Amino acid sequence: MRTSAEYLARLKGMRKNVHIGGEVVERDDPRLVPGTKVISMTFDYVDDPRFKDLLTASSHLTGQTINRFCHIHQSPEDLMKKQELTRLLCQRSGGCIQRCMGVDALNALSVVTFLTDMAHGTEYHQRFLDYLRKYQQNDWVANCAQTDVKGDRSKRPHEQADPDLYLRVIERHQDGIVVRGAKAHNTMAPYADEIIVLPTRFMGEKDKDYAVAFAVPADTEGLHLVCRSTTSRPRKKLKAPANELGVADSFSIFDDVFVPWERVFMCGEYDQAGYLAGLFAAYHRHSYTGCKPATTDVMMGATALVAEYNGIGKAPHVRDKLAEMITVAELVYAAGIAAAVKSQKAPSGTQVPDFVFVNAGRYHAGVNIYHEFETLAEIAGGLPATLPYEEDFLDPAVGPLLHKYIMRNPAVSAEDQHRLFRLISDMIVSAAGGVAQVAGVHGGGSPIMEKIALVLQYDMDAKKRLVKELAGIG
Amino acid sequence: MRTSAEYLARLKGMRKNVHIGGEVVERDDPRLVPGTKVISMTFDYVDDPRFKDLLTASSHLTGQTINRFCHIHQSPEDLMKKQELTRLLCQRSGGCIQRCMGVDALNALSVVTFLTDMAHGTEYHQRFLDYLRKYQQNDWVANCAQTDVKGDRSKRPHEQADPDLYLRVIERHQDGIVVRGAKAHNTMAPYADEIIVLPTRFMGEKDKDYAVAFAVPADTEGLHLVCRSTTSRPRKKLKAPANELGVADSFSIFDDVFVPWERVFMCGEYDQAGYLAGLFAAYHRHSYTGCKPATTDVMMGATALVAEYNGIGKAPHVRDKLAEMITVAELVYAAGIAAAVKSQKAPSGTQVPDFVFVNAGRYHAGVNIYHEFETLAEIAGGLPATLPYEEDFLDPAVGPLLHKYIMRNPAVSAEDQHRLFRLISDMIVSAAGGVAQVAGVHGGGSPIMEKIALVLQYDMDAKKRLVKELAGIG
Amino acid sequence: MRTSAEYLARLKGMRKNVHIGGEVVERDDPRLVPGTKVISMTFDYVDDPRFKDLLTASSHLTGQTINRFCHIHQSPEDLMKKQELTRLLCQRSGGCIQRCMGVDALNALSVVTFLTDMAHGTEYHQRFLDYLRKYQQNDWVANCAQTDVKGDRSKRPHEQADPDLYLRVIERHQDGIVVRGAKAHNTMAPYADEIIVLPTRFMGEKDKDYAVAFAVPADTEGLHLVCRSTTSRPRKKLKAPANELGVADSFSIFDDVFVPWERVFMCGEYDQAGYLAGLFAAYHRHSYTGCKPATTDVMMGATALVAEYNGIGKAPHVRDKLAEMITVAELVYAAGIAAAVKSQKAPSGTQVPDFVFVNAGRYHAGVNIYHEFETLAEIAGGLPATLPYEEDFLDPAVGPLLHKYIMRNPAVSAEDQHRLFRLISDMIVSAAGGVAQVAGVHGGGSPIMEKIALVLQYDMDAKKRLVKELAGIG
Amino acid sequence: MRTSAEYLARLKGMRKNVHIGGEVVERDDPRLVPGTKVISMTFDYVDDPRFKDLLTASSHLTGQTINRFCHIHQSPEDLMKKQELTRLLCQRSGGCIQRCMGVDALNALSVVTFLTDMAHGTEYHQRFLDYLRKYQQNDWVANCAQTDVKGDRSKRPHEQADPDLYLRVIERHQDGIVVRGAKAHNTMAPYADEIIVLPTRFMGEKDKDYAVAFAVPADTEGLHLVCRSTTSRPRKKLKAPANELGVADSFSIFDDVFVPWERVFMCGEYDQAGYLAGLFAAYHRHSYTGCKPATTDVMMGATALVAEYNGIGKAPHVRDKLAEMITVAELVYAAGIAAAVKSQKAPSGTQVPDFVFVNAGRYHAGVNIYHEFETLAEIAGGLPATLPYEEDFLDPAVGPLLHKYIMRNPAVSAEDQHRLFRLISDMIVSAAGGVAQVAGVHGGGSPIMEKIALVLQYDMDAKKRLVKELAGIG
Repeated sequence: MRTSAEYLARLKGMRKNVHIGGEVVERDDPRLVPGTKVISMTFDYVDDPRFKDLLTASSHLTGQTINRFCHIHQSPEDLMKKQELTRLLCQRSGGCIQRCMGVDALNALSVVTFLTDMAHGTEYHQRFLDYLRKYQQNDWVANCAQTDVKGDRSKRPHEQADPDLYLRVIERHQDGIVVRGAKAHNTMAPYADEIIVLPTRFMGEKDKDYAVAFAVPADTEGLHLVCRSTTSRPRKKLKAPANELGVADSFSIFDDVFVPWERVFMCGEYDQAGYLAGLFAAYHRHSYTGCKPATTDVMMGATALVAEYNGIGKAPHVRDKLAEMITVAELVYAAGIAAAVKSQKAPSGTQVPDFVFVNAGRYHAGVNIYHEFETLAEIAGGLPATLPYEEDFLDPAVGPLLHKYIMRNPAVSAEDQHRLFRLISDMIVSAAGGVAQVAGVHGGGSPIMEKIALVLQYDMDAKKRLVKELAGIG
Repeated sequence: MRTSAEYLARLKGMRKNVHIGGEVVERDDPRLVPGTKVISMTFDYVDDPRFKDLLTASSHLTGQTINRFCHIHQSPEDLMKKQELTRLLCQRSGGCIQRCMGVDALNALSVVTFLTDMAHGTEYHQRFLDYLRKYQQNDWVANCAQTDVKGDRSKRPHEQADPDLYLRVIERHQDGIVVRGAKAHNTMAPYADEIIVLPTRFMGEKDKDYAVAFAVPADTEGLHLVCRSTTSRPRKKLKAPANELGVADSFSIFDDVFVPWERVFMCGEYDQAGYLAGLFAAYHRHSYTGCKPATTDVMMGATALVAEYNGIGKAPHVRDKLAEMITVAELVYAAGIAAAVKSQKAPSGTQVPDFVFVNAGRYHAGVNIYHEFETLAEIAGGLPATLPYEEDFLDPAVGPLLHKYIMRNPAVSAEDQHRLFRLISDMIVSAAGGVAQVAGVHGGGSPIMEKIALVLQYDMDAKKRLVKELAGIG
Repeated sequence: MRTSAEYLARLKGMRKNVHIGGEVVERDDPRLVPGTKVISMTFDYVDDPRFKDLLTASSHLTGQTINRFCHIHQSPEDLMKKQELTRLLCQRSGGCIQRCMGVDALNALSVVTFLTDMAHGTEYHQRFLDYLRKYQQNDWVANCAQTDVKGDRSKRPHEQADPDLYLRVIERHQDGIVVRGAKAHNTMAPYADEIIVLPTRFMGEKDKDYAVAFAVPADTEGLHLVCRSTTSRPRKKLKAPANELGVADSFSIFDDVFVPWERVFMCGEYDQAGYLAGLFAAYHRHSYTGCKPATTDVMMGATALVAEYNGIGKAPHVRDKLAEMITVAELVYAAGIAAAVKSQKAPSGTQVPDFVFVNAGRYHAGVNIYHEFETLAEIAGGLPATLPYEEDFLDPAVGPLLHKYIMRNPAVSAEDQHRLFRLISDMIVSAAGGVAQVAGVHGGGSPIMEKIALVLQYDMDAKKRLVKELAGIG
Repeated sequence: MRTSAEYLARLKGMRKNVHIGGEVVERDDPRLVPGTKVISMTFDYVDDPRFKDLLTASSHLTGQTINRFCHIHQSPEDLMKKQELTRLLCQRSGGCIQRCMGVDALNALSVVTFLTDMAHGTEYHQRFLDYLRKYQQNDWVANCAQTDVKGDRSKRPHEQADPDLYLRVIERHQDGIVVRGAKAHNTMAPYADEIIVLPTRFMGEKDKDYAVAFAVPADTEGLHLVCRSTTSRPRKKLKAPANELGVADSFSIFDDVFVPWERVFMCGEYDQAGYLAGLFAAYHRHSYTGCKPATTDVMMGATALVAEYNGIGKAPHVRDKLAEMITVAELVYAAGIAAAVKSQKAPSGTQVPDFVFVNAGRYHAGVNIYHEFETLAEIAGGLPATLPYEEDFLDPAVGPLLHKYIMRNPAVSAEDQHRLFRLISDMIVSAAGGVAQVAGVHGGGSPIMEKIALVLQYDMDAKKRLVKELAGIG
């Protein structure tokens, strides 16, 4: 297993294809550092006794101890450990741990390459296992690039005015393929080792060229990562862990990228595209049953603490709101546990979580995210929106007055009260807060997608039959 | 194990202490039959291969095969089986299976009698086991009478203007105790074999006489069961299973009832009263994670079917509403699974479900029940409220016209459409519907009680510490 | 103006065409009396000084003082008085005052007959005014029969498998027309003088025969009123005003009914059908801005009172819930006021309320009705669902015990506590409660209809332009 | 009336007491310009024929034409014009017009100075009128500083550990008073002419020194305005009106400020403090019934436009969400109209809006603000959170590719699609978005304050009496 130092060192050596604000930058650009610090946690905690059992696994390929973010789940327990691990790490990152999408993509590919071979007599699964072996040995970090830019949402891939609005194969050669298109919302792509590309939806025969899955190094030729970085306003003196962490998302343009066959895992088998898309979604939604409760843990902790600082820690309306936050966090978490309990083994041996529970859990998280921000805002009051800048607190003239007047609970120091409100301000009155809200709705699939998935996958006929019986309908 | 015939035969022989509408009635009164039919299902399905594994268990006392409604849970699997069993039976009863409260009371007593003995050197646990052995051998059905009438809600038991407003011990004798008070909302008490009485809340030293738990035969001297029966308007010709089933609740008055010591399981140990109350609540809320999804199953099946009959089965707003119903049902169910996965063994050996998950699950069910009725009403349209009486459909003059004009989907017969709307009318425009709504809110504990329980039992300090770390608060 | 005695006397003389439960009944059948008592209030309060100004108006045709339920609105003040009148009478009826739909239908016809004449050179308006004069002189009570049975909801009138599933003209004669079809959900039709029939939706050219509006006496030949009566369980001793009132709805079958031309107000002018349907809906939704706040007034009064009786009148969660109920009531009421302030005069001189405000108000009432029941249930507790029958309270054996144990607030008599819980039980655990819920959703148009109406009628382009300007989009 | 140029010129001459980020700045600092541009609109539109009638009024003191933001309302029509004006200007500022709080404070003072004189024989009202005359002549812009920093929220002013945590009078002199304390959340204080200080709550006798109201020039000695500025990321090329506008809030410290008697409007009359606080809140909540619908107008316009650009403009779920936004906007607006219709004249002659309607309207806006952001995020998709920087769109290498891949609706240019997503990103994924959310909850009073106000001011006893009558309770 790698150390975070090794991970960071490798990033430094990569080809410069990251664009931020009109510049092409190195991967240790200050706007990327907050993101690499988050990923580093997934390496650094391996030796922490609290995390060791969760953060490592035994490779089903080699029997070696690997980072769980490289592991193919073999049992319900594996799924539960991934879920718990995700919650604990996300608590410490104050949000998204970012590395889950790689393992989710690998697990989905492990299942579908096997099924595709069964259906088409192809050899994707062995090819995938060879790739996986390297992935585990190198302890890679991968972004999963799934969401196409999609053009007109009312049209299918082949119907778009510009055929490139979904990523597609434009050339097939003896040694590989050439792809063109763009994938959006690719979290941590600028500091990943690898980009794993999956189809975004069901495909029909006419969408054949769009049914493509593969992996490329993140600095491969022809790939442009146009990034937006989300970080907090840096602190002068009031350093805080949350303030050091952040994320960068990429709008990833595949401007005619060559992919050798040994890295191609689907190419034209359109009948499998939808299941691969859905299966990645299922694994990723299962990851959300770990990360979203962690987000809520931070929100509820902040709500409880600010209520205490404001002197209303025991007020009934605060208790009610905390209970609602607990309920959201734990129902989403319960959905992940139930998805593991009711999981099934795929023909490839990979453990697949229950689709209904992962969708129900992700949906519930998605429709509550804005309300959680609202709750914290309600209890914190207006100060997160109007808090003077840190520099004014350091100013010899007005600084002491600000410290005098920020006091609430006399048992807590002015600095600690200041620290808490600054954290909350960074959380809910910031671009980072906006990203968390939008990601809370759309990341891993929007609520409307989960509703559609739920109705498609649920045995509603059984429920209709039940009602017919009760009604005496023959 | 008993048959339903044996159960019904025993009821017939009981002392007449059931009051309905100003009369004292036998236990085969037509207003009680719909309820006894529900209980009978718990005997009849024992031999059904679909239910056998769920509906039976091996007694940890005797090793004999017993009805699971008499079983003390020994493992997470036992809890999951009870939950699944509850869902399946409730689906078939179209609502509450009613027999769960007995097994929930027994499990709570198995734990707390043991703990009380540890704390006080008493002998309640052996006494309880003797009672349990009889209970299992006789395959009894028990009501659990927990909720006191409670008088002024802002006052504790000993503070009430009338000291009897919580049930209490008024005399202690060598052979037993005498109790006085009343318990409300006692579902199926008029057709139970036994009444198990538990305290309803935490008690202080001054509430000592109110810290009492015991079991009595349902027809014991001094006990009046004043009942309200909830049944559907009987059908003339359009017989339907749902129409035959119902429930009766009892306002149970203990007008100086003698209880022999061998049936007394707590008497004055006020420090254990709160935990016993809470533990029964926890078991019962775990049962709700089985029954409430079943209620939703019936509601969603009716919604899906009436949408189909109305010709809007594929409409997006119907799909959205079905997805919401699925989410409620499956999140509540997931909470029960998670409560079993995270359950713990009590010193007595009994398996105790996780309190946070059972409360979160029950809360979520409770705050969604009215909305489910609303959804079915929205999709069904106004007809359930204005549907002419069955007799008019049978009338030679207007009957054929009603059949002509009730037609919606031409592929479904008028009679079937009529049947479905009559079922829905019985479900949502009826006293039975009102009972289901109120019971959905308050049965097993109101949402506000679960909120309080959640905040009390949750490790909120861990969440505050987490936020302090992120904020850099020392 | 008529007295209620005159109204009731006229009902007695009418042809027997009311079906209830397999019988053909007189209009003073006990199942209809609770409804006629409600209508009687609209006659009886005319002389009450608190109501006189609201309940009477000056006819714009004759200048005579008439009942406002027969009046064509001439000004914003007229609309506001109708709204206030509706709220006050509905408060006293504990629900729906039932007579509003007649005046709403008349106002809609006054506008559209004029517009139809302008567009088609017909003479409907004069014909309507002649009818109106008689209506005002006789102080009639009218049901408005609008909602067709509609068959397959995904098909238009002329596309139905059975062409009669929307009411239509089947013959045209020199002296009148013959119509066939059925109208559903016709509140108080069995005790109305007149039935006014309006189209239920937009019509295209192929739906021409369905574009028909007319009035007939409620006992006209060929008309069958198949009714469902909604009343409370009658009281033995505990008489209460709310218990005496009720409603009956009719499924009204027009089995080839002849209508003379002087009573026909639209016949084939399909281009006007949609506006007539929508205009009646607008007037009726404006009435809902009066009646729904009254429903909420009763619900919140019951909630506040039962909280006081339960000893939690000052609890913060009760205060919160009352505040929410106030908000719903007063926002809906405000929508009615705003609709009057922004109303416009039609070419006929009739005052037309603003469509956006009436739809927003009705929508908001409709999506909150179930939640109001939920709130009352939450605060009342479980007793409304399990309250023993009145007869048991009168029973010499258990009656005194029930009175002892129902006590909560010691300052309130047991009888008054009993009375309140019985009222609430009648309100929320009864068929009447179910009818109120379904009517709260669908009466006057379902929330989904208001959403569609809102989006159609709103100037969304103006809002898009605004955003384009802010974004710098040319 | 002033021009905006005169307004800006006066700002330049003011004493430097504005702190931003550790500096003391001039009032034309770039971080304040976006705010002054908003205020300038209230001067510039005076001559616009679309606004003239709304933006001017006739002074009841002098009969001269004045800016309506300086006017004391004399009639319901005045209140309705203020409301409409507020909506129209806020639409154009894309948010808050900021100048309303001055006029709201003046109206409240006009009423309460009069009442205080009646109760105490003081001379505040004449003093206020003298000040008002100057205010109108100079066409001043005022911040209203009401919210104290409040320390421990569970304690009253005089109970705080530090007596300065509510602003108070520390010295009384012959020529004036000296005050100490701090007021928070003072929007646009750094570019106001005047600061009007009002008490924040009810006061008891022991809080006497805290019952103080007065006006000072915004640059008066001893006053420090510690500010936070909220602006959008400036544009390089894609200039847009919304991008130029912003706001700054002040944490205003009164470090022993002298106020001459002619500017003091309350000093010790603690019995009037609560009403003054509440009356300002009422006027300000009435302003919110104008500005919040404007906020929703912009949100719904953006939602409708982005749906159109995404190709889902006609999708049912978009229609549903737009309808909900319309309903929120128009119910809040209706509440303002109703508050004007039901307004009453105070003894001073000032028109006072109805408290119940303004609170209901403000409450409804406050509990929906986060949901509106959620809706826009749902329909826009993830791009607002991950949109690359403008500079990358201008980059010759990746710019053309970004324009290629941002295309959705082929009928709209890439630049316009880019412009819209950038606007939405600025709106919902930014500190400005966070401020709008928090201000939407807390500005003008949090929802919990409106709930408390509603229950206090509502005639709930009338509703209880109504229920008693219906129940037959004597």
